[in-house]
Formats: sequence, structure tokens, C-alpha cells
Amino acid sequence: MIIRKATKKDVPSIVAMLSDDELGQKREDYRIPLPEKYFAAFDLISQDTNQNLIVAEDESGIIGTAQLSFIQYLTYQGGIRAQIEAVRVRIDKRGSGLGEELFLWMIAHAKNQGAHLLQLTTDKQRPDALRFYEKLGFKSSHQGMKMHF
Amino acid sequence: MIIRKATKKDVPSIVAMLSDDELGQKREDYRIPLPEKYFAAFDLISQDTNQNLIVAEDESGIIGTAQLSFIQYLTYQGGIRAQIEAVRVRIDKRGSGLGEELFLWMIAHAKNQGAHLLQLTTDKQRPDALRFYEKLGFKSSHQGMKMHF
Repeated sequence: MIIRKATKKDVPSIVAMLSDDELGQKREDYRIPLPEKYFAAFDLISQDTNQNLIVAEDESGIIGTAQLSFIQYLTYQGGIRAQIEAVRVRIDKRGSGLGEELFLWMIAHAKNQGAHLLQLTTDKQRPDALRFYEKLGFKSSHQGMKMHF
Repeated sequence: MIIRKATKKDVPSIVAMLSDDELGQKREDYRIPLPEKYFAAFDLISQDTNQNLIVAEDESGIIGTAQLSFIQYLTYQGGIRAQIEAVRVRIDKRGSGLGEELFLWMIAHAKNQGAHLLQLTTDKQRPDALRFYEKLGFKSSHQGMKMHF
């Protein structure tokens, strides 16, 4: 298994994973050929050096994904925050430890890039995810507030 | 009162506000001359078109600040999220409605830029802030998880 930056060829496999999820299936539009808007979004992500869309791959194909972003602030003495979003593991690989491997890769990369903090929000409808993050060392110190337009 | 993008000259006033706060005073290093790292951070923010560091200004000077970021994802059919961080109102202007004006400006700007969602996290040690955000229309649907390095 390797973890690497995603390429444009990986986009359909990533969107398949984003869709194959209780919350994701209401949000995504997965079909082949994949709607062009996903490729347009990929281009914008890959052109931005603060964005790291990653995939995990083994002999069976793409088995996991996540997006790690870096955001520069004035707060914390001009610190950089790392932020994780859009983590998915392919359904047949869930419970295999791959999620933890993705996180350990991102934690190491965030430290290596000089971030002082790694953050994410997790939907209160996903209690198992909350326990997973706490086990990794995240503290549930904040409320995550969302306003959908 | 006007709301506008911050310039380098505004950085000391912004950092003064970031420091003048129960949580912020432990995190910041406000002194004059201001440490160079804050100006270096400002340069990186202002060069990134996805970042909008804003200030509110009246005849008395800089009275408020916030940072509005845009992040491109594949999720939500290639959607853009807007995110708010580092909101502060100068101590003598708290309770004046300025916080709400800053938020209304950022909500309008986020919609105008095509974001589908506006998000932030708020420290559970700030119960008044939570009520303020709920009144603005944010839903407390997520846990905000943080890992400090």
C-alpha cells in the first residue's frame, strides 16, 4: 500500500468513495462518465500548493482518500494550521487500519510543513468517527458550526 | 464604519486585538515594534487569493478583524467552502453590533464567491460566542477536533 498525491486519473475512484457513504450519497453525483465539475474542482485543488489531495492505493486500486489543507493566519504568532476534510476508506477496506495510516501520514506531513495545529470537524451523526479521532489524540474542544447556503 | 481588506499597516492593530482576549493573551506576542513573524505571515496571507483578512475601521482606527478563507474540495460536487477564523472586535466596541456587521459582510462575500457552505469552529470555553453564531443561523452540527503539536 502506498499513500501519494492524487492525479486526475484518480478522480472517479475518489468520487466513488465520497458517494459510497450514508451522508455522501445525498451530496454527490457519481456516474460514469463523471460530471466535468469534479475534474474542474480537481484542477483548482492541484494548482494550489496549500492543498494536498491524497490517495491510498494497493494492487486492487484506490482504497482511501483525504484532503489536507494548510492555512496561514496571524493568530498563534503567525502560525499555519493544517486541516483535514473529505476522508474516506473504500467500503471493503473499512476496519483494516487504513484510516489510521492515512491519519499518521497527514499528522507527519503537517508537522513536517511547520503547522502548529491540526484540525477537523466531524458530524455529530458519526459517533464512531469521534472515538476514532480521540484515540488518535484529537481533543473535542470546539463546536463545529455550519451554515449551508 | 467601513469594512475592507487589511493592509500591512493594519497588522499591529490586528495583533493588538488578537492579544486582548482571554484565550489570545496566552498565544500572542504583542509588543511594539511588533515581531517580524507577524508581518511575514501577513505577506503570505495577502498573496493568497483564497484568503481574505479583513478589518473594520472607523474614525478611532481599526475596531474589528476576521479572516475569511475559501477552500476548494471535490466533495459537494466540487464545491467551495468558506471558513471564518480569527474574529475579534476591539474591547471598547464589544456589544456594539460590529461583530454582526462583520459576519453579514462575510456571509454576503462567501455567497457572492459561490461557496456552498460557511463554517467555523468555536471554543467550548466561549458559550456566548456559540449563542451569537446560532442567532446568525449557524447550526452546531459538528464537533471541532484539534490536535496541537
